[in-house]
Amino acid sequence: MERTTYCGLVTEDYLDQEVTLKGWVQKRRDLGSLIFIDLRDRAGIVQLVFSEEFDRRALEVAEKLRNEYVIEVKGTVVARSEREVNPDMKTGKIEVRVNEVHLLNKSKTTPFAIQDNVDVSDELRLKYRYLDLRRPEMQRNIQLRSRITHSVHSYFDEQGFIDIETPDLTKSTPEGARDYLVPSRIYPGHFYALPQSPQLFKQLLMGAGFDRYYQLARCFRDEDLRGDRQPEFTQIDMETSFLTAEEIQEITEGLIAKVMKDTVDVDVTLPFKRMDWDESMARFGTDQPDTRFGMELKDLSDLMTQSDFKVFREALSDGGEVKAIAVPGGADLYSRKAIDKYADYVKRFGAKGLAWMKVTDDGFSGPVAKFFNEGDWFQQITERTGAKSGDLLLFAADSKRVVAGTLGYLRTAIAKEQGMIDQSKWNFLWIVNWPLFDYDVDLERWVPAHHPFTMPKEEDVHYLDDGEDPHKAYAQSYDIILNGLELGGGSIRIHTRELQEKMFKALGFTKERAEDQFGFFLNALDYGFPPHGGLAIGLDRFARLLAHAENIRDVIAFPKNSKAAEPMTNAPAPVSNKQLEDLHIKVVEPEKTADKDE
Amino acid sequence: MERTTYCGLVTEDYLDQEVTLKGWVQKRRDLGSLIFIDLRDRAGIVQLVFSEEFDRRALEVAEKLRNEYVIEVKGTVVARSEREVNPDMKTGKIEVRVNEVHLLNKSKTTPFAIQDNVDVSDELRLKYRYLDLRRPEMQRNIQLRSRITHSVHSYFDEQGFIDIETPDLTKSTPEGARDYLVPSRIYPGHFYALPQSPQLFKQLLMGAGFDRYYQLARCFRDEDLRGDRQPEFTQIDMETSFLTAEEIQEITEGLIAKVMKDTVDVDVTLPFKRMDWDESMARFGTDQPDTRFGMELKDLSDLMTQSDFKVFREALSDGGEVKAIAVPGGADLYSRKAIDKYADYVKRFGAKGLAWMKVTDDGFSGPVAKFFNEGDWFQQITERTGAKSGDLLLFAADSKRVVAGTLGYLRTAIAKEQGMIDQSKWNFLWIVNWPLFDYDVDLERWVPAHHPFTMPKEEDVHYLDDGEDPHKAYAQSYDIILNGLELGGGSIRIHTRELQEKMFKALGFTKERAEDQFGFFLNALDYGFPPHGGLAIGLDRFARLLAHAENIRDVIAFPKNSKAAEPMTNAPAPVSNKQLEDLHIKVVEPEKTADKDE
Repeated sequence: MERTTYCGLVTEDYLDQEVTLKGWVQKRRDLGSLIFIDLRDRAGIVQLVFSEEFDRRALEVAEKLRNEYVIEVKGTVVARSEREVNPDMKTGKIEVRVNEVHLLNKSKTTPFAIQDNVDVSDELRLKYRYLDLRRPEMQRNIQLRSRITHSVHSYFDEQGFIDIETPDLTKSTPEGARDYLVPSRIYPGHFYALPQSPQLFKQLLMGAGFDRYYQLARCFRDEDLRGDRQPEFTQIDMETSFLTAEEIQEITEGLIAKVMKDTVDVDVTLPFKRMDWDESMARFGTDQPDTRFGMELKDLSDLMTQSDFKVFREALSDGGEVKAIAVPGGADLYSRKAIDKYADYVKRFGAKGLAWMKVTDDGFSGPVAKFFNEGDWFQQITERTGAKSGDLLLFAADSKRVVAGTLGYLRTAIAKEQGMIDQSKWNFLWIVNWPLFDYDVDLERWVPAHHPFTMPKEEDVHYLDDGEDPHKAYAQSYDIILNGLELGGGSIRIHTRELQEKMFKALGFTKERAEDQFGFFLNALDYGFPPHGGLAIGLDRFARLLAHAENIRDVIAFPKNSKAAEPMTNAPAPVSNKQLEDLHIKVVEPEKTADKDE
Repeated sequence: MERTTYCGLVTEDYLDQEVTLKGWVQKRRDLGSLIFIDLRDRAGIVQLVFSEEFDRRALEVAEKLRNEYVIEVKGTVVARSEREVNPDMKTGKIEVRVNEVHLLNKSKTTPFAIQDNVDVSDELRLKYRYLDLRRPEMQRNIQLRSRITHSVHSYFDEQGFIDIETPDLTKSTPEGARDYLVPSRIYPGHFYALPQSPQLFKQLLMGAGFDRYYQLARCFRDEDLRGDRQPEFTQIDMETSFLTAEEIQEITEGLIAKVMKDTVDVDVTLPFKRMDWDESMARFGTDQPDTRFGMELKDLSDLMTQSDFKVFREALSDGGEVKAIAVPGGADLYSRKAIDKYADYVKRFGAKGLAWMKVTDDGFSGPVAKFFNEGDWFQQITERTGAKSGDLLLFAADSKRVVAGTLGYLRTAIAKEQGMIDQSKWNFLWIVNWPLFDYDVDLERWVPAHHPFTMPKEEDVHYLDDGEDPHKAYAQSYDIILNGLELGGGSIRIHTRELQEKMFKALGFTKERAEDQFGFFLNALDYGFPPHGGLAIGLDRFARLLAHAENIRDVIAFPKNSKAAEPMTNAPAPVSNKQLEDLHIKVVEPEKTADKDE
C-alpha cells in the first residue's frame, strides 16, 4: 500500500478522496460502535474514524489498537461536522473514514506520554530518546535543524564555496580546550586527537588554493559541560582567500539572511550593525550585547572624582571607573532585600558591593543618597543616566573589568526578570576590532582573544616587534551576535611565517615549542599562502535560537547528558582487555571513582 | 582590489575589458623587455604579459616574481596573435596586459613542481599536502567531490529527507571491524567508540518517526588498510520507513542519476538492472560483477561427470563443480608460462591448479586436450562455452566457492590485462537477494552477510526458528555495483524484538551477550518500530570512480597513508603525561615498537 501523504498534511484538499496513511496511534477513543483514533506521523496528526458502517473488520482491528501501535489505513476523507471542527489543527476540518487497516507493529506502554510538556526527567528523556524524539516539539526542532543545513548548503553552493571534509583523526594541539584522544593501534604510545575545530586545515586549504571553503564540521572538546555545551558539536565553518573582513562579513550576512528566510520566514535587514569591541564593553559591559533593550551602562567617572562618597573616589584613584544603569520603574520593583541579593551575586565578578539609589520626586533615596542630594548632583546624575522618578540606579565602582562584569550581568538579569525583552526581535550585530590578546585571570597569563592565527590590525602589527607591548594590539576579528549570544566569530588570519612566529613569541612560546606543536604549519607558510580569513558559526546554538529551545540538547538528535554520557546506549562503557591490549594502553584506576548514576 | 573573475575563466568574453585577478605564479618567461607569467588559481591558468609599454613599474615587479609567489594584477584582456593561440586552454585565445601588480606573498622553491604527472612519492605528496592539492588534478578531484555532495544534499532535500546528525562519541560494539576508542576523562576505565557506521542510530531515528533520514556520515574503522580503505571515510547514509526494497532502490537510482548528471554530465538509464546474488555468483564468480565485458563463467558440471579427466570427475563427486571461461583470442595471447603464472596466483583462492585448452581449427591443444579431442567433446564444450578457434579455455574444478573465486578473478584480471573493458561505460547494477549469512573461513563461523539487523526474505523467516537451519535463509538486501565495484548496499531491517532476538541467536549470541551489547536496541524495538530499511553509499569510492582516480586518497583532502598516519601533521603523535593522567590510562610499551618512518 503506497502512502498518499503524511497524516499531518491531510487537509480539505483531499475531501472525498481515498487516502492511504501510515503512522502511530496517538490516542484512541472507543465509543463501542464508533472508534476515533488520532494517527500521528512526522507531519502531524489526523483523526481516523472506524465504524461497522464503513468496515466491520477494520472496526474489529481498531478495538485492539493501543497507543504507539504502528498501522497503515485506507479510507475516505470527509468533512467533520461543524461542532467537531478543530481550528487549531491543520487537519482539523476533516476526518478519515477507515475501510481497511493493517497492524504493522505493536508497542508496549511507553514510559512517558508522547506529547509536549510532559513532566519527565532529562535523564529518562535521553534513555528513551527514540520516544522523546517522537514528541511534536522534538520533531519540529530536528526538522528545523535540517532546514537550516539545507539552506546553508544551498547558499554556499550558490556562492562558489567548495565543500571539503577535514580529518577527524588528527594531531593533538594542547592549546585551548582539552582534546579527546584516540590511541593508535599501529604506533604504540601515539595518539590521534579529535579536532576542536578545523582551523589549521581550513587555512591549509587556502594555502592549497581552494579560495572558498566551507564545511559543516563536527568538533570535539573534552570540557566540563555548561548548559550550552556538548562534547561534540557542529560548526558552519568557512574560509576565503583575498577578501577583507568586511567582505567576509557580507557573505556571512547573506548566509544568515537566507537561513532566516528559509527556516523561520523572517526578513532581516542588511547590513547588520557593526560595533567596536571597546564600544560594546563600554555601553553593555559585555562583548555579546543584547541590544533588544536599553538600560545601557553610563559612565560617571568624571563626575565622581568630586564626590564625597569615598568608595567611588577610591575606585577612581585606583585607576578604575564608576558606572551606572538606570532600571526603569525599578524603585518599586526592587526592595532593599532584592538588591542585596544581587549585591551578593555580583561578588563573583569581583565587585565588593553594589551602591544604589532610588529616584523620587524629592531627590534620591537609599543608603548612599546622602552624598548626592546636595548641590547639582541630582540633576547631573539623572541627566547622565537618563533616570527618571521611580527608577532605580545601580552603581559599580571598580576596575574596568569588574564594572563591566557587574553591570553587564545586572543589565541582562534584570531585563529578563522584568520581561523587558521583546522576544519577537532578531537582533544581529557584529562586534569588530577585538583586542588581539586577553588576560586570563585564572591562568594568570595573556592568551589569544580568538586564537593564535588571528591577524593584528595593520597599524598594530608593529606591537608584535621586539621591545614593544604586544598586548596593545587590536585584531582584524569579528564576532556575530544574535540577541546577546555569540553565534559565531572569525578573523583575517596571519599568512606569513614571520608574523606567525612573532605571534607565538608574544604568547610566550619558545622557538622549540612553536616548532614542536606548529612546525608543519610554519613550514607551510613558507610556500606562498594567500591573504585569507574566515568564520565559524555554532550550528547547534543557531538551531537552538531559531527553535526557541531552552537547551542545545533539544536540537541534537542524540546528545550527551551534563556529564558527557549517553543514557540510551550507556556510552562511555568499559571495553574488553583485548581491545586495550591492541591499543597498548592500560587503565589506571583512580582512588575515587566517579559514579555514572550519581 | 576586487577580483573580476577567476584566472581560469578569463575567456574572449572579457576582450578589451580591464580585469583584476589574483593567484599564484605558475611559470615565468623573461624575455627582457617582455615578461610572460602564467597565473594560476582554482579555476585554471591565464597568461599575463608585462612590458614597459604597458607599465614600467609592473615590469620591474614582474622581474622579481618567482614560481608560487602570490600576486594580484590589473590589466586589459587582449586577443593573442594567431600563432600564440592555445586551443587546449579555456583562456588560450587571450592574454592580459598588466598595468598594475602587487606582490601579496613570496614562496620558497617548492619540493616538487605544481603540475600533474610529477614523479613524486606518495609520502612526499602527503607531507606537503597543501602543495599537492594545488595541482590541477587534485583541484579537479576535490571540486568534483564537492559537486557530488551538493548534488546529494539537493536531491535528498527534494525527496523530503531530513538531514540528521548522529553521534561520533558512542558505544563500542565489538561486532564487525575493530573500533577506534576514546578514553573518558569523567568515567575512569570507560571508553567511547567512534562509529563504524550510524546503523543503529538511523534505525532508532525510524523508531522515532522521522520517516526519511539521510546524512553524510563520517565512519571509522581501525583495520589494516588496503588500496580503497581509509581509517575514516564518509558514507551517504539513508534510511526510510514503510517502503519496500524496490522503493528504496528507486530512490537510490534517482540519487545516482542526479549525481551523474550534475557532476559528470552523464545520463544513466533507469531503472538499473537487477540480478539475484545466486545468478551473479554463477555467471561472474563474484557479487560485484563488472558487466562492461562478457567472458562469463560457463557451467560444464553436467558434461564432465562423463569425462575421463580425473581432476574434473573427482571435483564433481566431492560435490563441487566444473566451470570455464573462454578468453577471446587467448590462444595467441597467453603462453604456457603466462598461464602457469595465473595457475600459481589462483592458489590463494584455494585452487589446486588451472586446467586449460586452446581452441584450434583442428580441435583442442594443451596438456589436458587429450581427454577432450575424442567423440563429440569438442562440439559440446565449444557450444557450451561459446569458444571459437583461437580462444583460450580456462577451467576450474573445485567447490563452488573456489571455482567462483578462481574464475571470477581470472575473468577480471584478463579483461584488464587485455584492455577488454570499455572505460567510457558506467554499468550500474543491483545485486539483490543475498544470503542472510556468510560462512567466514578465517573465523570458522557464520557471520551476517551484511549485518545482524537485516530482514530475511518473508518466506525464509521460518529458517530462524528453533530446529531449522538459519543459514538457508536469504535476505531482503541489495548492493549497488558500479563497473564491478560495490558502491553501496542496504537492506530492509528487522523491526520486531522477537525476530531480532532470533537473529542474534542464529549468530551464536547467548541471551546475556545480546543483552549486554544490544540490550538498549532490543528494548527500543518493544515500542512500535515501523517497518524500515535503507542504504549507504561510500562517498569516497563514488568520488574516486567519478574522478577516474586510482586511489581514494586522491579524492580526500587530507587522507592518511597506508599505515594510518598523516605525514603532514605527523599524527598520531605522543601526548603529555598530564593528558594520559587526565584520561586514567597508561601506555604499555610492546616489546617491539613499530617505526613510523619504516
